[in-house]
Parts: sequence; C-alpha cells; structure tokens
Amino acid sequence: MEAKPVLSQLTPYKQGKQTKEIQQEFGLERIVKLASNENPYGYSNQVKEALLQGLPDFNIYPDGYTAELRSALANKLEVAESQLVFGSGTEEIIQMLCRTYLAPGSNVVTATPTFGQYKHYSLIEGAEVKEIEVTADGYHALDKMLEAIDEKTRIIWLCSPNNPIGTVIPKEAFEAFLNNCPKHVLIAFDEAYFEYVDPEANIDVLSYIKSHNNLIVMRTFSKAYGLAGLRIGYGIANHMIIDKLNVVRGPFNTTSIAQQAALVALSDDVFITNSYEKNKTVKASFKNFLNQIGWKYFHSETNFLLVETPISGIDVFQYLLERGFIVRPGELLGIPKTIRVSLGTGEDMEDLQRVLLEFHNEAIVK
Amino acid sequence: MEAKPVLSQLTPYKQGKQTKEIQQEFGLERIVKLASNENPYGYSNQVKEALLQGLPDFNIYPDGYTAELRSALANKLEVAESQLVFGSGTEEIIQMLCRTYLAPGSNVVTATPTFGQYKHYSLIEGAEVKEIEVTADGYHALDKMLEAIDEKTRIIWLCSPNNPIGTVIPKEAFEAFLNNCPKHVLIAFDEAYFEYVDPEANIDVLSYIKSHNNLIVMRTFSKAYGLAGLRIGYGIANHMIIDKLNVVRGPFNTTSIAQQAALVALSDDVFITNSYEKNKTVKASFKNFLNQIGWKYFHSETNFLLVETPISGIDVFQYLLERGFIVRPGELLGIPKTIRVSLGTGEDMEDLQRVLLEFHNEAIVK
Repeated sequence: MEAKPVLSQLTPYKQGKQTKEIQQEFGLERIVKLASNENPYGYSNQVKEALLQGLPDFNIYPDGYTAELRSALANKLEVAESQLVFGSGTEEIIQMLCRTYLAPGSNVVTATPTFGQYKHYSLIEGAEVKEIEVTADGYHALDKMLEAIDEKTRIIWLCSPNNPIGTVIPKEAFEAFLNNCPKHVLIAFDEAYFEYVDPEANIDVLSYIKSHNNLIVMRTFSKAYGLAGLRIGYGIANHMIIDKLNVVRGPFNTTSIAQQAALVALSDDVFITNSYEKNKTVKASFKNFLNQIGWKYFHSETNFLLVETPISGIDVFQYLLERGFIVRPGELLGIPKTIRVSLGTGEDMEDLQRVLLEFHNEAIVK
Repeated sequence: MEAKPVLSQLTPYKQGKQTKEIQQEFGLERIVKLASNENPYGYSNQVKEALLQGLPDFNIYPDGYTAELRSALANKLEVAESQLVFGSGTEEIIQMLCRTYLAPGSNVVTATPTFGQYKHYSLIEGAEVKEIEVTADGYHALDKMLEAIDEKTRIIWLCSPNNPIGTVIPKEAFEAFLNNCPKHVLIAFDEAYFEYVDPEANIDVLSYIKSHNNLIVMRTFSKAYGLAGLRIGYGIANHMIIDKLNVVRGPFNTTSIAQQAALVALSDDVFITNSYEKNKTVKASFKNFLNQIGWKYFHSETNFLLVETPISGIDVFQYLLERGFIVRPGELLGIPKTIRVSLGTGEDMEDLQRVLLEFHNEAIVK
C-alpha cells in the first residue's frame, strides 16, 4: 500500500501555535496573536446579529450552488453568476485548480517566497514547481517568471499582495506580463488581501477577465471580512474555467452558516472601510517605530509587515513568544532573518513595540 | 490552457432540488424533502444551546488539529488521537484518499451502484475504476471485487451500509474478504450511516484496524448526528495512513463551529438513540405499507429505503415532486426503476404513503 512517492518529501502545513498552548507553556495570561493575519477587529456586527436571530437548519445539507451569496457577489463585482466559484477559503480554490489542470509531466511557475500552498498542492498533483526568486525589494520577478514558462506549464501563480511580503504587482508590469503570457498557461491571481490594498495600488485585475480567458482571481472572507473560522473564499474567471472547477469541487464544500455569514458581511461596507482605515493607521505607526529603531521592512499593502531582524527570525519569534506575542518567523516562510507581524489593534501593537524596544536595547548592550 | 482530459467526461454532482425552487415551480406551500438522507429530527438540543451561549470567534482560524474534538472522539472510539483525521464530511476524506494514493496508471475497485463520489474523485486523479455489480439482492459481490484486484489496484471502496441501497456487508463475508485482500490495496470502508445500523448487523469494523494496516473507516456527523450543513466527518485508521492524509489535507479544512458542534453532539447519546429508534419505527411502518401495495424494496440498515417502482423512477419522482415530496430517482443513482426515499418523520411518511397509494391506485385503473 503505497502513497504517492512525492508525499514522503512533503510535511503537513504547520499551523501557528494555539493561544491556549502558549498560555500553559509560559504561564502567561494575555496572549496577543499576530501570526495568521486575522482581522483584529473581529467581523461585522450585522453578521453576529443575523446569526443570533436564526442559525441555519444544520441537519440540512448546504446549498451546493451557494445561490444567494452567488447572486449578491455577482451583483457587487458586476460579473455573471456563472463566473464565480466558492471554496473553503481561497486555499480550497488553489487545491481545485491543481486537481483540474495538473498531472505528472506538467509544471507550474511561482514566486519565492510566496504562499506555500501553491507549491504544496502542485507537487501533490505530480507537477514540477519552478520557483523564481522575488526581486531584492520583494516584488514578483515577472520577466524571469515568463522566461520559466514552457509548453508544459499549466499554471502561473501570482500572489498580490504577496504573502508573506506584502507587495502588490504594479499595473504596468502586470499589463506587460499579460501581453506576453502564453494562452496555454492559466494565470492564478491570488488577492486574499485585496480589501487592505491602498486604492492607488489597486490594479483592478477583474477588468482583465473579459479580455483574458486564462485568468482567475481569488479572494476570501477570511482576512478583512473576519470570517477565517468559517472557511469561505471565491474565484472569479471566465465561465469555461469555472465549469471545470465545478467538476472537481466537492458538492457541499462550504457550510450553510458560512454562506449566510458571508452574504451579510458582503453588505456591510462600513466594517470593511473601518478595518482598512484602522489597519492603515496602525501600519503607519508601526513603520514609524521600526524606522526609529532602524529595523528594515518590506512595502506592504496588507494587514501584516515583514520585518528584517538583527538575528534569526526564530530567535526573535521565541523572545516574543515568551512574552506573550505570537508572530511568524521568516525561516518557516522561506525568508530567513525576518518576522512576519500581523497588524493587531493599536493597543496590542503599542505593547508589542515596547517589548521589541526592550529586545533592541538588550541587543545593543550585548 | 487545457484541463485534464478526463474532466470532459465528467459532470458536476447534481444536488437534489432546493425546497424554495420547488415551492415556486409548483405553487406548493409545504415541501417534504426525502432526498438527501438528512436527519428529520434535526440535531441535538445541547448543540443548539451551546452555540447560542457563545459562537466561536469567527475572525480566528479554526484549530487545524481539531484538538478538542479529536480528544473526545479518540476517547469514545477507544483509538489513539493519531488514528483520526477530520474532513469536510466523509466526502472530503474520500477526496483526500484519492489525492494520496491515486495517479495515472493506478486503478480502484468499487461496487455498483454505490456512492458516486468514489468513482468521480478516483477518475479525477487519473485512476481507472473497476465497477463490480452488486448481487441481485443488493449486496457487495466481494468475491468478484477481489478478483478484479491486480497489482495496480490502490484502493477498494466498500460502502456499508451501501448508499443508495442500504445493505451492510455481513461479518463473515467481510472476514473472508480481509483474509484474501492483498496488503498493497487500501480498504476504504465507508460507514456514513453507521449510527442507523441494527446492533445485530454491526460488524464492529474498527476492531480490525489493529490487525490490518490497510484499512480506513469513514464516518460522519452529517447523517444521524444531523449536522450535514456544518460539513464534518472523520476517518479512523492506522497512524501511517493518517500521517499521509494529513500531508494532502487542507490545513483548516473544517470550521471552528463544526468542531464545536460535533464535540457537543458526540456527548449526546440520547439524541442518537432516539433518532435510531424513531427511524426504526418509521422504517417498519413504511415497509409494511409497501408490502401492502406489493412494491418491493431492498434490505436497509439506514435512514432510507430503495424502492422498486412499477414505471421509471424518474416518472414516480416527478409525480411526487408535483405533490410536494422530493425523493431521488434511481436513474440518477445507477439503479433504474427505483426511487430512494429518505425516511422522514412519521407524519411526513403517512402523507407520502397517502400520495403513493393514490399513484398506485391510478396505475391499476389504467
């Protein structure tokens, strides 16, 4: 009984430590989790109210077509209902793309570092993964990525903003890329952090779907919408792509409560605007602090910052962990001597800054 | 841009009609859905109370390890925690098994008719599917299934009780099968309807896991536990199998609310016993009715009955649909001139029987 050989080279996704574990391990009361880019302001109160007024009938299967949410989202995005597919987070859309397009003998192109699940799921389906290092300032090296494409390339993964860095692909660069990307390659454009992008940096990627049959855009309710625990994301593309994804999609792959919550969340623009604004303020303030202590960071259009650390990211991670702050060491994300810090509330970030300053001062004394 | 060639031979899962659709189409007020083998008695009140007392923090990612539910379930089943894997319904466990063990050149063996997703997901991963017809009385033809195994066989799918028929694999037959099944073949034993099985027909399949490293048992919270809308099921196997599945598993593949609900549901044995007893009573009464009008049906250890129809199952389905009852025509399930009827509440079944009797009498007059 043999599993696919490639699986022995892969390890399960390592989730961030659970709050409870750390409380017990270090005898801490308060834990600030800045590790998973969750929305520290929760989720829309309208969702809370709607759910408390009436939970769905859990004994009934969800609507596999996601009809109500589909209709509302199609309206909001000004696309046809047939151009949407839903998944258990963008995560599952990525998995579906791999199961639809990849087989042994094919290959994909990704940036590195980038979201690790592109590589993971591509390998599982037997594809080769060509990883192209980002530029020194953390941008996708689109020219080199184009060069890596050959006749066996099935998917090119673009992550914008790019997790774990935060940079977006600029409009001009993307248009040049689009013009040169061969039509046999599916462009999978992951915008999980879309709602956090500064309007000036937004390249309106949806506008290219009409003219490009080989483009799928992925977004999620897990980040700015604050519904990570309910697992729901979506893809937008030409209906020909969507039709194929629907063949591999599990028939009931999102829960009825996730569909209900997302539907209400979608109508509360004020919550999204507030989350965006608060995040912007906190980000400016944290960057200011980092400038003061002379630590570098990458440009970010997200709710996290990738910060360069004077010693290994794992050591800084450990220092912070013992003081009740969970961040992600860059060593686990493919970019050593960094930490990825999710932007928490103003208060949480002030506390973090106090601890970072202590660390910085101790390091100088040594 | 080409999807896998096999996808053009497959169609998306066709879900049963939604209640709202049918109400509108036929101008009906009351619709009785007997199509998806859901629990007509809902789900445990303890779950309802727990959820209303406090919903999980939806902005936080679920615990990907499913620690609390894992611990409780391991305790209840008397297996190690490392022997469990969770999925978005058994459905997703099936998908994970295919992604772990199948590749082009491999094959699988299934019964036919049986749950369609074994074949569907196996084909998507490039495997050949060998379908072995069930016996005349609806049992897995285990000898013929064994004969179909060759050195390229990776998985044999056993569904017991077998959806859409209802029969279980008898203990003696299973033991003979186990002794003869080659060790390079994974035995995937789907017990989605386990809680409905008469204790006398229960073969205690978990007891074989210790002695057989190539056996995985799948169960779900979607049927008797009444949590279909929350999407959570599980697999039990030797930890070597589980470790492999965890590599392909999406890191956050079940929601936090599903984990919470399943944890509470698991402790309410009274709800399960009541559901079992009510189902047993309703089943006996429905069988009695069918005997009276002379319609045949298959033996069933589930909350549905596969009934032979005098004309095509689709026509009977349509007749019932127009009168507010949704069942599943056997033509869609690979067994023509039948309907699969989920067992509803006593009241719903009496109404159904009245309509079936009308149909029967009309047919006789003609």
